[in-house]
Amino acid sequence: ISLTWTSHVEVQSFIERCMTAVGTKQHHARSLAEVLVEGDHRGHYSHGLNRMDMYVKDVQTGICAKDGEPVVEKESAATALVDGQNLLGPVVGNFCMNLAIKKAKEVGIGWVVAHSSNHYGIAGYYAMQALKENMIGMSFTNTSPLVVPTRAKECTLGTNPMSVAAPAKDGDSFVLDMATSAVALGKVELHERRGDPIPEGWGCDPQGKLTTDPKRVLTGGGLVPIGGSEATGGYKGYGLGMMVEVFCGILAGAQYSKYIRTWKVTDRVANLGQCFVAINPENFAPGFSDRMSDLLSIHRNLDPSDPDTPVIAAGDPERMNIKKCEDMGGIPYHISVVKYMNECAKNIGVKPLLPCDKIVSN
Amino acid sequence: ISLTWTSHVEVQSFIERCMTAVGTKQHHARSLAEVLVEGDHRGHYSHGLNRMDMYVKDVQTGICAKDGEPVVEKESAATALVDGQNLLGPVVGNFCMNLAIKKAKEVGIGWVVAHSSNHYGIAGYYAMQALKENMIGMSFTNTSPLVVPTRAKECTLGTNPMSVAAPAKDGDSFVLDMATSAVALGKVELHERRGDPIPEGWGCDPQGKLTTDPKRVLTGGGLVPIGGSEATGGYKGYGLGMMVEVFCGILAGAQYSKYIRTWKVTDRVANLGQCFVAINPENFAPGFSDRMSDLLSIHRNLDPSDPDTPVIAAGDPERMNIKKCEDMGGIPYHISVVKYMNECAKNIGVKPLLPCDKIVSN
Repeated sequence: ISLTWTSHVEVQSFIERCMTAVGTKQHHARSLAEVLVEGDHRGHYSHGLNRMDMYVKDVQTGICAKDGEPVVEKESAATALVDGQNLLGPVVGNFCMNLAIKKAKEVGIGWVVAHSSNHYGIAGYYAMQALKENMIGMSFTNTSPLVVPTRAKECTLGTNPMSVAAPAKDGDSFVLDMATSAVALGKVELHERRGDPIPEGWGCDPQGKLTTDPKRVLTGGGLVPIGGSEATGGYKGYGLGMMVEVFCGILAGAQYSKYIRTWKVTDRVANLGQCFVAINPENFAPGFSDRMSDLLSIHRNLDPSDPDTPVIAAGDPERMNIKKCEDMGGIPYHISVVKYMNECAKNIGVKPLLPCDKIVSN
Repeated sequence: ISLTWTSHVEVQSFIERCMTAVGTKQHHARSLAEVLVEGDHRGHYSHGLNRMDMYVKDVQTGICAKDGEPVVEKESAATALVDGQNLLGPVVGNFCMNLAIKKAKEVGIGWVVAHSSNHYGIAGYYAMQALKENMIGMSFTNTSPLVVPTRAKECTLGTNPMSVAAPAKDGDSFVLDMATSAVALGKVELHERRGDPIPEGWGCDPQGKLTTDPKRVLTGGGLVPIGGSEATGGYKGYGLGMMVEVFCGILAGAQYSKYIRTWKVTDRVANLGQCFVAINPENFAPGFSDRMSDLLSIHRNLDPSDPDTPVIAAGDPERMNIKKCEDMGGIPYHISVVKYMNECAKNIGVKPLLPCDKIVSN
């Protein structure tokens, strides 16, 4: 595969320019650019630059608002319901997470829920904002239906991701950031493009039966919840996906389940529901971060089953990807993604500044 | 299999008498009896009468306190840290859940964490207490190490269950009550007794490799997290198990991970960590229970993949078990469990009142 690499700053300013070119407010564009670059930096390339064109289209068609700020509709010392005003997801997410942290400073916890939001990038970005305040952070979002519930054959739940971040000592942390489906759709698509079968337990065919054929998953089938089949605990993943929906669409009064539009459709607003939580360990037992560090050490120091694959903790693969980017001096991208985004930029009158010349092979 | 059935009331008073016979305070004994009977009633027989002897032994040996009440150590409008005073788990659980609900009535959410607790039965029992107040309830507990993290070969996490309950209309509800392991240990033991292989994705051998041989799981191996192998998303279940530990042992300053004693050892106190949450939908968008009912209906009315197994929602299997008990006029028990518990009662001078004559075949 041909990869090219680009500095953090370069990609971020490129995304900002593209977004402002279609009318996004400067600081909204920056919020989005920061989340997308952080997605790439952490190795979640499906939630980074790769999706910029979708956000551009959302603002360009007017299906996503370019002006205004989120509004608090209802509030208590520990909770808030926020109207996202159909703004870009990261604008809503940052607003809500800041509010949750503020409340957690005052009463130990902040639980903030938003309706009328849009795609917000990686869930972990918001959860991790709490780490800077030495707090536990959580974030949940509903998404377009792609997952088939246990025993069913129709998609009624999104990949409904959840993230939980907890601070340890010296900047270390636990960062769980996962879809409640067994895998992301992108992984199935990748296998299909390569002509490889997928492992059993990733997706099902249009009849709701597990299949190893990625084509059948992508044409009328769907992803399955974590756990795979009913026998191996897939009903737990199905329950977790619904739990995320309860915290998001149901609690916020947003769209939910099968009523959520697919992202490709721009004929109606997304009205996604999202949930943001901050918990202050200071309100509980002293020594939280020491115990967190110990818990992480216990696991990282375990004797591995296979000597070549050390035991790691949630957040470690992303840490390794960040290290890799730092060593390279930039974020590696598929040359095709860069070319596509440069083309997209040209169409909206933005100078295609992403370089395609620093080719590295992988 | 030979089953016998016993009324709700009969079992409950039997457990109460056994617990008070070894010195448990009357209302503590009742709290325990209620949780265990509810476990059986809901079909979670591994967390019901079947475990009474363990609680009796805990109190009898003095490793679990028989006197006192839980104490609030630290408190804010929305949070509390509780010292469980080494009392029976259900005594601590009820205390904490009531406190969480009280806080949720005042500020929309209550997040209560306890250290110095003991086994509390089914997690769902506590989460469901919020349903009576039309609130969302959650409950988490850490447990003795039985689960091998992804890539490892040693057990460092418990089955660490989590429960989330959400009220719908007319007494209906969503009740997720699940271990973060693929299955419970009891399921593996059952297959071993029958000489059956287990499905791939339930447990691993002492080298940390997935196995279908229940013997290898039970002798030096362990359960695996939801998701099974790393390829099918087992690292997500591993992350969820650690998340539960963060909310319990780490936040509460209780024992955690590999430091938790096995339940069979009574040489030291358990000092389990537990977490109880209540969230008041009134603080968020109006119409919560209508949307909950709709979400449940959407799923229950899905066209099933196999016409014989309808699509259900979390909490429905338990609802069916309760219905079955009501139709039978009692809770069905294995005759061997009843005989064993009657023997246990005799040893502590309690009249073995459970009937063994109402045999039904299954």
